[in-house]
Amino acid sequence: MQRIGVIGAGAWGTALAMAARRAGRDVVLWAREPEVVAAVNGGHENTPFLAGVALDPAIRATGDLAEAVRADAVLLVTPAQHIRTTTAKLKPLLATGTPVVLCAKGIEIATGSLMTEVTAGELPDTPLAVLSGPTFAAEVARGLPTAVTLACRDATLSQGLAQALGSLTFRPYASDDLVGAEIGGAVKNVLAIACGIVAGRALGDNARAALITRGLAEIARLGQSLGARPETFMGLSGLGDLTLTCGSLQSRNMSLGHALGQGQPLATILAGRNSVAEGVYTAEAVVRLAALRSVDMPICQAVDAILNHGADVNATIQSLLSRPLKTEGA
Amino acid sequence: MQRIGVIGAGAWGTALAMAARRAGRDVVLWAREPEVVAAVNGGHENTPFLAGVALDPAIRATGDLAEAVRADAVLLVTPAQHIRTTTAKLKPLLATGTPVVLCAKGIEIATGSLMTEVTAGELPDTPLAVLSGPTFAAEVARGLPTAVTLACRDATLSQGLAQALGSLTFRPYASDDLVGAEIGGAVKNVLAIACGIVAGRALGDNARAALITRGLAEIARLGQSLGARPETFMGLSGLGDLTLTCGSLQSRNMSLGHALGQGQPLATILAGRNSVAEGVYTAEAVVRLAALRSVDMPICQAVDAILNHGADVNATIQSLLSRPLKTEGA
Repeated sequence: MQRIGVIGAGAWGTALAMAARRAGRDVVLWAREPEVVAAVNGGHENTPFLAGVALDPAIRATGDLAEAVRADAVLLVTPAQHIRTTTAKLKPLLATGTPVVLCAKGIEIATGSLMTEVTAGELPDTPLAVLSGPTFAAEVARGLPTAVTLACRDATLSQGLAQALGSLTFRPYASDDLVGAEIGGAVKNVLAIACGIVAGRALGDNARAALITRGLAEIARLGQSLGARPETFMGLSGLGDLTLTCGSLQSRNMSLGHALGQGQPLATILAGRNSVAEGVYTAEAVVRLAALRSVDMPICQAVDAILNHGADVNATIQSLLSRPLKTEGA
Repeated sequence: MQRIGVIGAGAWGTALAMAARRAGRDVVLWAREPEVVAAVNGGHENTPFLAGVALDPAIRATGDLAEAVRADAVLLVTPAQHIRTTTAKLKPLLATGTPVVLCAKGIEIATGSLMTEVTAGELPDTPLAVLSGPTFAAEVARGLPTAVTLACRDATLSQGLAQALGSLTFRPYASDDLVGAEIGGAVKNVLAIACGIVAGRALGDNARAALITRGLAEIARLGQSLGARPETFMGLSGLGDLTLTCGSLQSRNMSLGHALGQGQPLATILAGRNSVAEGVYTAEAVVRLAALRSVDMPICQAVDAILNHGADVNATIQSLLSRPLKTEGA
């Protein structure tokens, strides 16, 4: 695999283009916005979405989807809510057998579908993989050491993709559990909001560590109900991504929770931002999915109640704390 | 269980005394140092070890071990390297059937023994439990929300202890996996040094999250070789404690690693401190234990090589990064 097409030139898509380029690949980066195409090809910097990081001049940006998918593998990095539209556009352009690597994290709100479900529905004959893990985009773009899960059912393809994208500082670990690999990334933003609330209320680091732990148990329960393997959640796409996202106010979701915890109303917080905190939307989808599968997710339910149903922050925390004492894992 | 004896009045023992008191128990706190006994009984503050936290005046400190062990349950909170001496002293004083809860984290350097092994050897007829989890002592003492694992083979005793120590803000979750519950706390300090090195070298949060994840896999491998159950490591005493310790420069071990990462020699760092970073000593014990059990623990080995065998920090990081790409969990 020499030629890699990256679909979506936000911070994460741009960082992945850099990772592939660093691995020695020829990289074409598709951007929806003409100004991004111009910035990347002209100044070798994605000023709108990843300002301050010098890009390899060999990375070529394009607004032409057909050009970007003429590749040995395609990384799909458009936001979760646009995956269905994007895959529909890709369908007539994609050559048979070209593998697609899903790099977007989230749940489709309208349907409650995972990214693998949406893509497999739209592109039934395309070999799929999932790339997920603890990845602040700016660090990947700068070449700081990063390890990710690369999940794929076909071991040969998995190895090929790991070779194509991997370098000394960007290390894919193989897995064959696609659903497991994507569920952590989808749910973690909801838990990051919970951790932000705890931090904003100054409830301490012990409470945050307990939330992360009990939160991972919620992710694992939901994942297992969808067919994922429990050990996947101990890996980079589970615990790794969760601990990263819940450990830093760099995370948009955690900082939103922090503001909520300090008593700011959600509407005020959202009005003051120009970027989306994905967890606000996925909270509802996760809770709906959990209800469908009869999975107990008290922390996600609490976040959804605070965000979307006007629940009081203090009362919700009290009620979480007064759940009966149980065994771990239950 | 109404009367709780706490053996060891460092920060953690004092915090546990407060937790038991908050749960409504009568608490006697044994301290080795007469000045601690005086400070707790006189000023209701453990000024040497937990300054700034007002203690409940009903907590009684004593220098008389016999008085402290006349209790319905005894919490053993002396440092890991003193557990053998302490249990030998307890042996003639402890009434038959009085349960002992191990709250110290570590490995006995001289023998490579776990705390449960040391205690079971010295007190073969005493019912044992292990209390572990993500617990900064000052937060527990102040009554901030904290959840811990309480591991015990006897479910009735486990429930009794959880009732005796648990309150709205200190929540024990039951487990029956004693070795699993203690192994995370023993190894996490070594991994915290690794995370500190990465932070001191400014290698980024992605690298730290990957280290935490791969580090938990090392803990789990070692634990399973000793008979622990894998799911225990997803719990409070595993991932919970690890994410807490590796997420804050409050941790002595992480801050020691940070100084190493910034290029300070170990001798200089140790000379400038009056407190012990347990990980310096346990690194060697962990690596020895892993070798005995044929368990692969590359991160712990790297930390031990840097601390105890003069390995170069940069070269060690490079060699960790250039290990062959593998599947997750392997």
